Amino acid sequence: MEYVLVTGGAGYIGSHTVAELLENGYNCVVVDNLSNSSYESIARLKVLMKHDIPFHQVDIQDETALDAVFGKYKIDSVIHFAGLKAVGESAHIPLRYYHNNIMGTISLLEVMEKHGVHKLVFSSSATVYGDATRFPNMIPIPEECPTGPINPYGRTKLTIEEILKDLYASNVQIWKFAILRYFNPIGAHFSGLIGEDPLGIPNNLLPFMAQVAVGRREKLFVFGNDYDSRDGTPIRDYIHVVDLAKGHIAALKYLDKNSHTGLCREWNLGSGTGSTVMEVYKACCQSIGKDIPYEIVGRRAGDVLNLTAKPDRAMNELHWKTELDVKRACEDLWKWATGNPYGYQLENVTSAFFSKEKVHESRVLTVGEGTSFEVSVANIGATLVDLKIDGKSVVLGLNDEEEYCRPENPYFGATIGRYANRIRNGEFVLDGKNYKLTNNEKASVCHSGIQSYHKKRFLGPLVQNTQRNEFVAKFLLIDAKTEIPGDVHVTVTYHVNTEAKELSIDYEAELLNGNSTIINLTNHSYFNLNLDQEKTVENTEIVLVADKILDVDESGIPNGELTELHSQGNGKVIKLNKGIPAYDSCYVTANKSSINTRSHSPAKIFTAYHKASKLQLDIFATDPTFQFYTGDFISHPDFAPRAGFCCEPGRFIDAINIDPWKNAVILNIGEKYGSRIIYKFRTRSNASYWESSI
Amino acid sequence: MEYVLVTGGAGYIGSHTVAELLENGYNCVVVDNLSNSSYESIARLKVLMKHDIPFHQVDIQDETALDAVFGKYKIDSVIHFAGLKAVGESAHIPLRYYHNNIMGTISLLEVMEKHGVHKLVFSSSATVYGDATRFPNMIPIPEECPTGPINPYGRTKLTIEEILKDLYASNVQIWKFAILRYFNPIGAHFSGLIGEDPLGIPNNLLPFMAQVAVGRREKLFVFGNDYDSRDGTPIRDYIHVVDLAKGHIAALKYLDKNSHTGLCREWNLGSGTGSTVMEVYKACCQSIGKDIPYEIVGRRAGDVLNLTAKPDRAMNELHWKTELDVKRACEDLWKWATGNPYGYQLENVTSAFFSKEKVHESRVLTVGEGTSFEVSVANIGATLVDLKIDGKSVVLGLNDEEEYCRPENPYFGATIGRYANRIRNGEFVLDGKNYKLTNNEKASVCHSGIQSYHKKRFLGPLVQNTQRNEFVAKFLLIDAKTEIPGDVHVTVTYHVNTEAKELSIDYEAELLNGNSTIINLTNHSYFNLNLDQEKTVENTEIVLVADKILDVDESGIPNGELTELHSQGNGKVIKLNKGIPAYDSCYVTANKSSINTRSHSPAKIFTAYHKASKLQLDIFATDPTFQFYTGDFISHPDFAPRAGFCCEPGRFIDAINIDPWKNAVILNIGEKYGSRIIYKFRTRSNASYWESSI
Repeated sequence: MEYVLVTGGAGYIGSHTVAELLENGYNCVVVDNLSNSSYESIARLKVLMKHDIPFHQVDIQDETALDAVFGKYKIDSVIHFAGLKAVGESAHIPLRYYHNNIMGTISLLEVMEKHGVHKLVFSSSATVYGDATRFPNMIPIPEECPTGPINPYGRTKLTIEEILKDLYASNVQIWKFAILRYFNPIGAHFSGLIGEDPLGIPNNLLPFMAQVAVGRREKLFVFGNDYDSRDGTPIRDYIHVVDLAKGHIAALKYLDKNSHTGLCREWNLGSGTGSTVMEVYKACCQSIGKDIPYEIVGRRAGDVLNLTAKPDRAMNELHWKTELDVKRACEDLWKWATGNPYGYQLENVTSAFFSKEKVHESRVLTVGEGTSFEVSVANIGATLVDLKIDGKSVVLGLNDEEEYCRPENPYFGATIGRYANRIRNGEFVLDGKNYKLTNNEKASVCHSGIQSYHKKRFLGPLVQNTQRNEFVAKFLLIDAKTEIPGDVHVTVTYHVNTEAKELSIDYEAELLNGNSTIINLTNHSYFNLNLDQEKTVENTEIVLVADKILDVDESGIPNGELTELHSQGNGKVIKLNKGIPAYDSCYVTANKSSINTRSHSPAKIFTAYHKASKLQLDIFATDPTFQFYTGDFISHPDFAPRAGFCCEPGRFIDAINIDPWKNAVILNIGEKYGSRIIYKFRTRSNASYWESSI
Repeated sequence: MEYVLVTGGAGYIGSHTVAELLENGYNCVVVDNLSNSSYESIARLKVLMKHDIPFHQVDIQDETALDAVFGKYKIDSVIHFAGLKAVGESAHIPLRYYHNNIMGTISLLEVMEKHGVHKLVFSSSATVYGDATRFPNMIPIPEECPTGPINPYGRTKLTIEEILKDLYASNVQIWKFAILRYFNPIGAHFSGLIGEDPLGIPNNLLPFMAQVAVGRREKLFVFGNDYDSRDGTPIRDYIHVVDLAKGHIAALKYLDKNSHTGLCREWNLGSGTGSTVMEVYKACCQSIGKDIPYEIVGRRAGDVLNLTAKPDRAMNELHWKTELDVKRACEDLWKWATGNPYGYQLENVTSAFFSKEKVHESRVLTVGEGTSFEVSVANIGATLVDLKIDGKSVVLGLNDEEEYCRPENPYFGATIGRYANRIRNGEFVLDGKNYKLTNNEKASVCHSGIQSYHKKRFLGPLVQNTQRNEFVAKFLLIDAKTEIPGDVHVTVTYHVNTEAKELSIDYEAELLNGNSTIINLTNHSYFNLNLDQEKTVENTEIVLVADKILDVDESGIPNGELTELHSQGNGKVIKLNKGIPAYDSCYVTANKSSINTRSHSPAKIFTAYHKASKLQLDIFATDPTFQFYTGDFISHPDFAPRAGFCCEPGRFIDAINIDPWKNAVILNIGEKYGSRIIYKFRTRSNASYWESSI
């Protein structure tokens, strides 16, 4: 598998280019030091594009770390965005700009050379031209316009161009460099999920306007209206970032097409149309639907009158041109800004490394942090690691990924899949073909056995704070190449409402290849409502909202028969006292069954109440059965038997082998698998009300 | 004490500038990674300029190491030479040039900023102009000529100029940058002791010619004779390296003069006169006195027709102009080249770090390595560490500086000074003033006590291979601020003739301040001629060529009386058998005494012969006495008593306190102290001859 290495791939242009690369069938590895970007852009892209994007938090100046990345992946080419980019700042701290931008590039080129990688697309800038109006007839600016940057930022870009040219000249057979001179990128991804997220005060017009519009800043400053232009404000060539990203694909293809020899060439990436600052201001106000306050202030040092591209070379040679106008860019920006007023930073959301490896692929994310309802979820198993009511845990969890991956973990909080619960002897027939999975129990495969999701790292999450009290965290698993036929995309979406104290989990899956597969997804959380961290669930009272139970043999496999429930179900209150026998049975709810149960209304299937804490949990589900388990067989050193109870909604046990139940676990190509579970917590001071409420 | 930091100070222009800085009263610290230079240039400069030059082998890209240097010295300003400089090479390995030159400079500037050092003279190049003939009327080239380097080397220089300009602009109050654009430096220091010593094939005309002239290369290549010049060869502005070095002093003074604000300005350093390659070729042939073979070959990529400076700005502002012409440069080059045909690399000379600190200030140098007469000398005490005849040691020595500095070292091989042997109770009167030194023996100060030279690091050595079999290693000690009145320069010069198996040591000293001082220098080597590394000097026969012995009291202090020698001296053979009593007496030779005895012919004072090894040592000296000591009181864990014998020529013991002997140990201002010792070895197969020869 070949990769395009994207340096600075978590940044504004970088992340949009990663999206385009994936769209065009390339695999990407991203390195980024995250000094002015957020890993969330990559986490979101993975879920959005349904594709893994290996990420390494590496400063490209660190040759050792960069070398390790080149050693790990078969890198075919590099798109190099990493660098500092604020014109104004560059005049104040020029050394840092020269150090970071030039050294980073030299280090990158040295490592490329060492690993025999010779293809690079470089992120240059129209800033290298300086003030093109110093020449007659150089607006719009062709690539032949003499360079003459007027700020340190521009000089670092030009120096890097020169380094590339000298390196190319030192071996014209092997080096292939595309130098892309960007004009003014604006806008955001159509999804509204990725966009520009500047640290501190934005340097550029549109992010600044967006921040004024969402109330983060008071007013826009317009730097000078005494330029020799239509309305006195400077003229720029604004280009939609998605168009710009596409320019990189075009450049990469050009380098590949010219495979017989090296090359080093510059291309302007611009629209060819200049807009004044005020024109863009107006377009933006229109998208937003209101007038943004602004103030005309003095000219800014380093600004020039007109930077409009002559994009003919890119059109002719790269067969690329802009397709999206300023209006569209403003609309997309506004979609991004309203959905993400603070960019990738979400209020009451924190994340931390969850593996001892300290990689972004394995994190624990807490939503609602600081509220009375905190939910922590991790990439490993898309696991519900913790759920805290008023700061006290009500689910059992472990400390890190490594603990979750140990054999003694009894599926704490995990996503169970591809096929939850048991399959008799791991055998089934699908599309007329016999399958045999590797048993992990004596006479069955339980929770998918060796391909169990609870030890797989899910991609993402894509976290959003959709309303003040509502959070969404969406994980994706590309579940491929296992013993189970067919690869699937599985998305697990946690919805958290901190005010309603409600957590719901949505499961969705699609088959990627083949004709059909088997599937049954659920969550395996252990609850303990005592809040005081007592060791067992004693003193909890439960109600199982079911009137039938599945008859099973000693291996837990049903024979297809159902038994009517009497004392132990059917709406009766059961006290989980010390003396009661172990529960580990499958109950049938009133829900109807199908491959996608999400069209059904979730029904209440279970209630638990703890007299001391006065906490009540109601579970609602769309699936036709649920397994209730009193945790008697927990054999974890840190947890006693009955430390928590489980209630796992799902399809019928071993359904794939039992005709009337089979269709609900067979996912055919083109269909969607779906189900939903809702956990709702409330505190009831009046215990008698609870008893009577059932 | 304030210092000028000179980066790349061991290189060609750097070392000449260090010489000029010292000449002008500046203190220098040199950092150099020695990638294309030799520490010998610094060792030589220390001795030549009679000045210490702190040196650190540091690559300026190593910010940590550079930071430590800035932490150690009070650095006032920086002259920055460090960088790669071969135009042709830069086109082949451009990344290394950008990496090394630009990163080195950025790192240097960052560390300067951290330490509040803001003054820098930068080594730029006329190469930044590129081909100035592309403009009308730009020859000679003024600083206003637009830049346009045509090779990576030149681009690294121009980029650094831009970095300096941007950094200056970021804080115009504090940064002071002088950018010196060199034209073609040639020639060498007038002393003939420092000069250009290129690694590999020289890139420049004159070093190449010199190497052809001394037989290292077959012929000179002239790159193109079809240029539009007087004789078809390119025109360059050749400038004597000493003139160029002086330009740096002028720039430094200019920066200091303009102390009220920052500045950043370029100055050409050139003569204003262009010479063609063939003109310089002819001048050089004339200096050498013969025609150097040459061949006209094709033009070299990156060469331009004419690089002649317009030096007016430097003349007007820096009050600097060249004073030495091409002819003089050729003469100086030739002096350097003939005296040092392989530059600083000498045949049969090696050096190694001698202290565990691994600093160049403490090395052991072996001359005659690989011959049958090897002499090893170290900076610590200017000590004779080893003397090997046919690979076998005949003097006692230790392994490293740390061992030499331990109390148990019985002055093995050391230079003894400022005042060898004893002073009664450490008391003396000089110029009517009473002095009392700190005793290191019960009733006397021996070998200068706490200011003894044997634990001081001497500067240098300045090593030369004057003839095929003759080597000179000259050490310098600036012996200042001790209990003994007056500071002195002491030079200890080892002359080695490997064919004659002769080692001689020359002592010279000059008083630097005050009216007079006391002085008596010698060497304290312990010899053992058995060659088979037996533990004692048993079986050695000696002859003491003296007819009187000094009467001493029990503290070893003479009363001024002499006793006639009978059996134990006066030319009689004495066998150093186990049974004989310990010798530790002062013998009077036939030599006359004065402050500088080097005008006297050295007289034989001592002979030793070992019957088994058949090795004979004859010692000649110019001084009036010698102490003979059988080493009975050696109490070193690795050496037995009588492991070696000493013969230390010198002035009379306690002479400063005894009238008739006094004048020979008082060094007055303006005088020279001097003495010489010669050790001559030979192997005699006929032992009877030895016995009769006395």
